[in-house]
Amino acid sequence: MSAKYPQAITEMIEQFKKLPSVGPRSAERIAVWMIQNTKANPLELAECLKVANEEVTLCKECGFFATDEYCGVCDSPRRDHHLLCVVEQPTDVVPMEKAGVFEGYYHCLGGKLSPLDNITPHDLRIAKLYERVESSPGIEVILALSADVEGEATCNYISEGLEKYDCKVTRIAQGLPAGGGLEHADALTLTKALQGRR
Amino acid sequence: MSAKYPQAITEMIEQFKKLPSVGPRSAERIAVWMIQNTKANPLELAECLKVANEEVTLCKECGFFATDEYCGVCDSPRRDHHLLCVVEQPTDVVPMEKAGVFEGYYHCLGGKLSPLDNITPHDLRIAKLYERVESSPGIEVILALSADVEGEATCNYISEGLEKYDCKVTRIAQGLPAGGGLEHADALTLTKALQGRR
Repeated sequence: MSAKYPQAITEMIEQFKKLPSVGPRSAERIAVWMIQNTKANPLELAECLKVANEEVTLCKECGFFATDEYCGVCDSPRRDHHLLCVVEQPTDVVPMEKAGVFEGYYHCLGGKLSPLDNITPHDLRIAKLYERVESSPGIEVILALSADVEGEATCNYISEGLEKYDCKVTRIAQGLPAGGGLEHADALTLTKALQGRR
Repeated sequence: MSAKYPQAITEMIEQFKKLPSVGPRSAERIAVWMIQNTKANPLELAECLKVANEEVTLCKECGFFATDEYCGVCDSPRRDHHLLCVVEQPTDVVPMEKAGVFEGYYHCLGGKLSPLDNITPHDLRIAKLYERVESSPGIEVILALSADVEGEATCNYISEGLEKYDCKVTRIAQGLPAGGGLEHADALTLTKALQGRR
């Protein structure tokens, strides 16, 4: 006796539920909004998804998002060839570029070493990193991975691997975030901030 | 010098931003997830949106979601023909049906009277309501609109309009919600709860 949504709406709800930061309630709201709201344009969104699915790939060189073989950064001749910033994900490049503080090139690993999740060096773009470093003697490799256990482990692994190449390996600093006072900092952050004092 | 997302991703972000309960940060997360995550299936979602856009319409009789001319409720011969529950939106039917406490038919107005938003009786499915009531002498019309100023005004308007038909007009009760104690109730709810005592 229960009147439910038509199948097509139920399927939309299921699809929206899968998205990150969308719960079952939001999924229902979004699906119904898609049908009812005059501002909603399901076909436009559908087209968008198709285009993105077809066009977006990862840059062959650095692993950032690209629509051609190489991304906008690797394609640019104006950047500093002596700097290579290693990040975990393509998404990490965007805040760096928005801040506009880095002029070199990037290398996205695609994750970090994590034995628990079965992520080994072979699952990351580490071999490609060595290859790039080998072809640019004297380059500075800046490791900008996250400040957690897996990030540390990945940094250590890469640092060791890079020892045999002609390069300088540095790591971005850990310490107090801008605007953050001592009272909000946890013990580990304080330890790192003290160790990194200049 | 700024490396941004490829155009296709930026467009996805713009599209996701429009969805209800999705902010700019979530939109970015969802768009990137669509590209990166192995569980993401942009084409499946796109197809879903297209199908819903084509298939889902509103029931000719009651205004609930339907894929045919009539919805599942109106199509069912087993329901009580003497009861007609008037709600604002098609979405209001779903919680009623989930609760499984109502056995009659529905009538979705598509909104409520609101002079401020320029919503007049002609914008709502009120004429169709009168038509349905006229063809079912002796029917009970249960007004289940929201308990706010516009809801009240709409109830009053409909009640007056129904006076000339052979029907009984009732309103769903207002009072304390289940599980709600007196300490959490506002003054208006208390007034209504007292007035509605049995």
